[in-house]
Amino acid sequence: MRIGELSRRSGVPVPTIKFYVREGLMPAGQLTSPNQATYDSGHERRLKLIRALLEVGGLSLASIGEVIRSIGDPEQPVHKMLGAATDWIAPLEGGEAGPELEDAREDVAELLARRGWKADADCPAGETLAAVLVALRRAGHGGFVGLLDAYAAAAEPVARADLDYVGRMVAREELVESVVVGTVLGEAMFGALRRLAHVDASARVYGEGEEGAAGAMGEPAAPGNA
Amino acid sequence: MRIGELSRRSGVPVPTIKFYVREGLMPAGQLTSPNQATYDSGHERRLKLIRALLEVGGLSLASIGEVIRSIGDPEQPVHKMLGAATDWIAPLEGGEAGPELEDAREDVAELLARRGWKADADCPAGETLAAVLVALRRAGHGGFVGLLDAYAAAAEPVARADLDYVGRMVAREELVESVVVGTVLGEAMFGALRRLAHVDASARVYGEGEEGAAGAMGEPAAPGNA
Repeated sequence: MRIGELSRRSGVPVPTIKFYVREGLMPAGQLTSPNQATYDSGHERRLKLIRALLEVGGLSLASIGEVIRSIGDPEQPVHKMLGAATDWIAPLEGGEAGPELEDAREDVAELLARRGWKADADCPAGETLAAVLVALRRAGHGGFVGLLDAYAAAAEPVARADLDYVGRMVAREELVESVVVGTVLGEAMFGALRRLAHVDASARVYGEGEEGAAGAMGEPAAPGNA
Repeated sequence: MRIGELSRRSGVPVPTIKFYVREGLMPAGQLTSPNQATYDSGHERRLKLIRALLEVGGLSLASIGEVIRSIGDPEQPVHKMLGAATDWIAPLEGGEAGPELEDAREDVAELLARRGWKADADCPAGETLAAVLVALRRAGHGGFVGLLDAYAAAAEPVARADLDYVGRMVAREELVESVVVGTVLGEAMFGALRRLAHVDASARVYGEGEEGAAGAMGEPAAPGNA
């Protein structure tokens, strides 16, 4: 297809598509004449991936470029490639060095040992977790760190479901793409579900306690949607 | 304390503190002379909250302002205030109207009915979830939507742990602040844990399959950190 059709099908403006090609986020079309190129379903798929990471995942174009380069390198074994893909989408840099960060890193290492997780405490996700623990303590909510094990227990079945989904992919590019999409959009999905579960739990605990049964029974709440 | 000491204790520069006061993110200090004001531990606490939401939560100053105004309004019942606090930190706007969004909203309503959650499908978290489902399908990963129930089942104990933590707070401002901090930093915490659990699950599944036992046993992994 021509670039105009690719633009219509993907909803991405032509100048934006050209920009992504210049930035190395997607391969150029195949030249059919010096001024004309054709694009295929691989280009369309790549555009959808970029838009999803940009709009829903909130990644920067620079991070998306790194993710896409790690997808594209055929030298990497799958295991390393999956690691690189998730590393690039870890949102937090390690915090400032200091005793607070050292304590938090120790908490992470102890958690990994306690749960028997095969992961290094100093991998990007471990560093992100340590930075979150530092931020919780600095914000005066060190008590929240006590929820680590409850959270970790919930993360295990989620990660297994993710890997099970990823394992259904056949092609190598599809496999890594599904990890990237699953990590970024899956995080947004879990975040939204956790908030919905908060609304539910909060209505049960605070709604009835504070306003009698009005909030829970007076208004047509969840049953009205069914 | 004077503003200089508040700056030293919080690590926030004096001009930034003055900016937050002008923007209504924190109350002004108490004037002791026309050019001098004193600040107390409430100001220090508020500064920590702002920095945590900004740096770890990734919220904009505008969103933080809305959250803080919803915390501060003493007219609101706790139940409504908690809802307003979580609404303002929902990261996604509802997607573009259309049949895709309608289908996704129906998926959300069905999920709520299936799990018996007391929440409206059209609350901000429900709209965010619908937008995520649309993005997954657009990115060519509609199959990931099949993980909704596994994710929702994991979100339930997490939300109960959150509410349990929140329930320990005594003061009203503390209560809502803990919801805000817990929602934003708790999301970052779960995200990091999910990625660590991915590393673990991926090492078990792909590490051994592809490279023999080298990745899992040849290197000093998790046990070396304990």
